Amino acid sequence: MDLKAWLSERKDLVDQALERYLPASPQGGAILEAMRYSLFAGGKRLRPILCLAGAEAVGGDPQAVMFCACALEMIHTYSLIHDDLPAMDDDRLRRGRLTSHVVYGEGLAVLAGDGLLTQAMVLMSDASAYGDLDPRLVLAASHEVARAAGYQGMVGGQAADLLAENQKPDLALVQFIHATKTGALIAASVVSGAILAGGSPEQVRTLRGYGRRIGLAFQISDDLLDLTGDPAKLGKEVGADQAHGKMTYPAAAGPAAARQAGENLVREAAELARSLGPAAEPLAELALYIMERTH
Amino acid sequence: MDLKAWLSERKDLVDQALERYLPASPQGGAILEAMRYSLFAGGKRLRPILCLAGAEAVGGDPQAVMFCACALEMIHTYSLIHDDLPAMDDDRLRRGRLTSHVVYGEGLAVLAGDGLLTQAMVLMSDASAYGDLDPRLVLAASHEVARAAGYQGMVGGQAADLLAENQKPDLALVQFIHATKTGALIAASVVSGAILAGGSPEQVRTLRGYGRRIGLAFQISDDLLDLTGDPAKLGKEVGADQAHGKMTYPAAAGPAAARQAGENLVREAAELARSLGPAAEPLAELALYIMERTH
Repeated sequence: MDLKAWLSERKDLVDQALERYLPASPQGGAILEAMRYSLFAGGKRLRPILCLAGAEAVGGDPQAVMFCACALEMIHTYSLIHDDLPAMDDDRLRRGRLTSHVVYGEGLAVLAGDGLLTQAMVLMSDASAYGDLDPRLVLAASHEVARAAGYQGMVGGQAADLLAENQKPDLALVQFIHATKTGALIAASVVSGAILAGGSPEQVRTLRGYGRRIGLAFQISDDLLDLTGDPAKLGKEVGADQAHGKMTYPAAAGPAAARQAGENLVREAAELARSLGPAAEPLAELALYIMERTH
Repeated sequence: MDLKAWLSERKDLVDQALERYLPASPQGGAILEAMRYSLFAGGKRLRPILCLAGAEAVGGDPQAVMFCACALEMIHTYSLIHDDLPAMDDDRLRRGRLTSHVVYGEGLAVLAGDGLLTQAMVLMSDASAYGDLDPRLVLAASHEVARAAGYQGMVGGQAADLLAENQKPDLALVQFIHATKTGALIAASVVSGAILAGGSPEQVRTLRGYGRRIGLAFQISDDLLDLTGDPAKLGKEVGADQAHGKMTYPAAAGPAAARQAGENLVREAAELARSLGPAAEPLAELALYIMERTH
């Protein structure tokens, strides 16, 4: 399959849906403008695409889970806005654009993040968005996403990351931070799509294993790109992790071992996806692509 | 009825439930500690109590909606943590205790707020918490709460409040800020309880009118207390609104007109509550108490 064409087509569908779910409005004021500024800053839409693919992998209709896909992107975007704040990573540039607090000030940036997180909750409970889906499945998917985003997932990982700055690199801690800060929401993306599409417990379990592995691999590849990537291609400064004394996989285990760990994870993830049959082939290809982009 | 005894008994029930829904845990680390620090800082639990009373007013069991009551308190607490940040109101004291960012630093305070907001979403979709309730009603209550918290409600009001600092007091703007920043979540508290308890559309409409009125009155009474209250009794500095150039109702309309507006609102609210019969009597008494505390 042509993975790049598939990703690009899915990204366009997600962008259109996000525009429907958070349209510009003169009544929205500065807060809506700030929320949209970050939401439409050119993200790859990886989490929504995983959600749609998770639904397809178990035989579901991707359009029926689009509301959840968009909620995941809102949660991801909120986490970036807060992560970029001066009190956190203090990043001025993201995806080639100035970060929210540089443009709107810190107060409005905090609120824009809050607004996006809350809007995800609005979307996950919107009867006009979930339509004919079984409300118990909607709640189960919502629970999956919320736990992944919360203090036992992403928020917990961000806190651990913040507290670990300038400490001696430690592989177990790096793995905990990766699993929670990035891995949990990536896994929840593919799992929530499968839940909403009525996947069996076994299918959901397989996709959870897939999601955890690509979540870790994705963070490892990000760390490697920060070490060796091209700033023009990435749209952000490189070497920022080192400058911030960040605890990364390459810093804790060395770049070669990090690359090997990433390769193992995506190979296992691809095998898990392929065990679900041809409808999960895009997930398998996507897994293998994660480490390819670091070559 | 003895309103103070009723409030105190309800507050204890809510405190016990919050302890069950967000227990201390050595694995929770600094982030859970920070979340609990603010959640158990001695709040009055007004929003949860309103949620329980909303359920009772339409003939429901308050214990069955406790998960929603607790989610509302988590959302309220998150909003206080973020509101107190240096980039927002820059308050060092809240309920007689140091604010989150003073104790834990700005980064962790932002995350503690995020963690509480997300935990509310976890709770609102937790099958072991909502139990036998109709999942469609759970989603409808969740939608009500999320919209009230979001950019068209509380977050929007906080943004408008932030942008209005040091501008000329304007009554229409004050009313918008009050209705969104405080009023929306207070109204959603009583409404969500009624929705979950299976209230009729007419009952829900009546309670929405009640909630909006007490929400505005509550903010007016808060503004009056900031102007004339006793810091020892309030557990926070007074005169902070003036010092920050905050747009308040007394500043825009004068203290006498503000008091009159508050009295009218609580009288109308009490009448709406009493139209629902004796089960809504606590709501009527509570409304009248809001302005009494400013005397």
